[in-house]
Amino acid sequence: MRKNIKKFKNKPIIKAVSTVAGEKEKKGPLKDFFDITREDTKFSMPTWEQAESEMQRIAFELLLKKSKINKTDIDLVFAGDLINQCTSSTFGLIDSNIPFLGLYGACSTYAEGLILSALAIDSEFSDRAIAITSSHFCSAERQYRFPIEYGNQRTPTSQYTVTGAAGAIVEKNDMKNNVYINEATVGIITDMGIKDSNNMGAAMAPAAADTIRRYFKTSGLSPSDFDLIVTGDLGFEGHDILLSLLKRENIDCGDNFIDCGKIIYEKQADIHAGGSGCACSALVFNTYILNLFNVNSIKDILFIGTGALLSPSSYLQKKPIPSIAHLLRITKNI
Amino acid sequence: MRKNIKKFKNKPIIKAVSTVAGEKEKKGPLKDFFDITREDTKFSMPTWEQAESEMQRIAFELLLKKSKINKTDIDLVFAGDLINQCTSSTFGLIDSNIPFLGLYGACSTYAEGLILSALAIDSEFSDRAIAITSSHFCSAERQYRFPIEYGNQRTPTSQYTVTGAAGAIVEKNDMKNNVYINEATVGIITDMGIKDSNNMGAAMAPAAADTIRRYFKTSGLSPSDFDLIVTGDLGFEGHDILLSLLKRENIDCGDNFIDCGKIIYEKQADIHAGGSGCACSALVFNTYILNLFNVNSIKDILFIGTGALLSPSSYLQKKPIPSIAHLLRITKNI
Repeated sequence: MRKNIKKFKNKPIIKAVSTVAGEKEKKGPLKDFFDITREDTKFSMPTWEQAESEMQRIAFELLLKKSKINKTDIDLVFAGDLINQCTSSTFGLIDSNIPFLGLYGACSTYAEGLILSALAIDSEFSDRAIAITSSHFCSAERQYRFPIEYGNQRTPTSQYTVTGAAGAIVEKNDMKNNVYINEATVGIITDMGIKDSNNMGAAMAPAAADTIRRYFKTSGLSPSDFDLIVTGDLGFEGHDILLSLLKRENIDCGDNFIDCGKIIYEKQADIHAGGSGCACSALVFNTYILNLFNVNSIKDILFIGTGALLSPSSYLQKKPIPSIAHLLRITKNI
Repeated sequence: MRKNIKKFKNKPIIKAVSTVAGEKEKKGPLKDFFDITREDTKFSMPTWEQAESEMQRIAFELLLKKSKINKTDIDLVFAGDLINQCTSSTFGLIDSNIPFLGLYGACSTYAEGLILSALAIDSEFSDRAIAITSSHFCSAERQYRFPIEYGNQRTPTSQYTVTGAAGAIVEKNDMKNNVYINEATVGIITDMGIKDSNNMGAAMAPAAADTIRRYFKTSGLSPSDFDLIVTGDLGFEGHDILLSLLKRENIDCGDNFIDCGKIIYEKQADIHAGGSGCACSALVFNTYILNLFNVNSIKDILFIGTGALLSPSSYLQKKPIPSIAHLLRITKNI
């Protein structure tokens, strides 16, 4: 029978994190947490795609600097993004000189990278791995929707792609008072027939519900066993749908259910249904969530990265939006 | 210090493989090996992208059928392809109902999927995982170059994207006389400044040389210790460059160096520098190479999947072609 939960016996810890964010993110409630923010969201580069790569490069260099770990002591890097052929990652890390495994998990990429980093450490492939990702409002808009210059009006259920990059160094447990990756449940592709690419929260909510349901069913635990149940980027629309879906299955949803897409901008103008993009859950996890661990407000949570696996072509060919959600149980070693 | 080689202690075996191929591949030397070939390369679907997904769906179903393994006994599937946002995989596996981790490794995807499947088994996350991939000449041409209808003339160094899908079930060693994944070396992104997207062999050859060099240096082995050293899809041009690069470093290259891109079509008309695409190395490995193990012609090889991590946008923005090569040592358990 299938193993729905992987328990990481080596308790891989989150050794260091880094965050780079844009102008709009700096206006949000997490402004004081980011390592680096820039008002120039082109990051001095000639194109939006190169700006996104530059953010990922900066986030990568910051990881090494903050952790004081040498490049040659990192065994693997798992990276991915939303841009065609994941070039934000490949160009961002082109000079990294570290064994590289490319991922495509849309906005669930950070969760996927953290799971695979933990797996590599658990299998003793790596002593130390990096999970890193990025997204950029302007590169995503012109790829998925319209060029920025067109001034397209966004619908109320649409989400705002976060401009930023974030990464983590995951390593073997050093037995200190640390935050570690305890368990994981890998998502199953879910398709409930949603075709509106301006309502990705609705497409992703059933994937999150499926993964959460499988985790609770297999573990025998319930939401009240956790301080927080943090979804990736369902946003205001999708998070409401998730809670409805879970309630229908008699899973008790208290106010410990929160969503990164609701947190990152709060209710700024033009944000509509909240934040999205690979950097959304990565930035919120690396700042707001890890800070709650640091100040001892929380000690055991579920973090569920959600992703909408559509493409502009699949949308034009009138296909539904396949979605996925990967779950990590993150626990503080006390 | 970094671990350049992962030795899989659980010796994960390749339990079953499946292959689906198109019309041109059927005219090549491997024609009698493929499970399924179709003259209708649209596979009865309305678009090329949907045809590619359909091939991957068929390859997935075939894996279950040939192995007589139930879906619920498969813990994970690793899948990816060349199409934007990897939709050939997500739509091909939309009804698979198996925990899914999406990859982007361009033409190295099959090697990447096999490494991660072996890793999942070695860490005891999975008893059984699937690695699967696909590519399609027509979906790749219209995404990377020109619509087929345009009748663009291809340059002599250009390679021909293979139409096909291929997968493998990897599982715990059952201690029988089986072919298993012995070791792996993960590739590092390499950029030698090649910008010609019609000469991907030249871009990928340095990545293959780097991975092969690191493997031999770390293991203390040499090419003569192996029956074959099989690269993914360097083609006629890239394979020659690889041999030159290795000879320059005093690595002795005998006639045990072969390349899937040279094998799949041999010298058919219009093929130019050979085959490429995710399905190229996957089809050749699953047919020609595994057959050599079956008839006891070989017992220990290196298989190096190569990938060019460019995108049409990075090409238009005049960026070089970052490349990668992942190595697996495949050994027969005697």
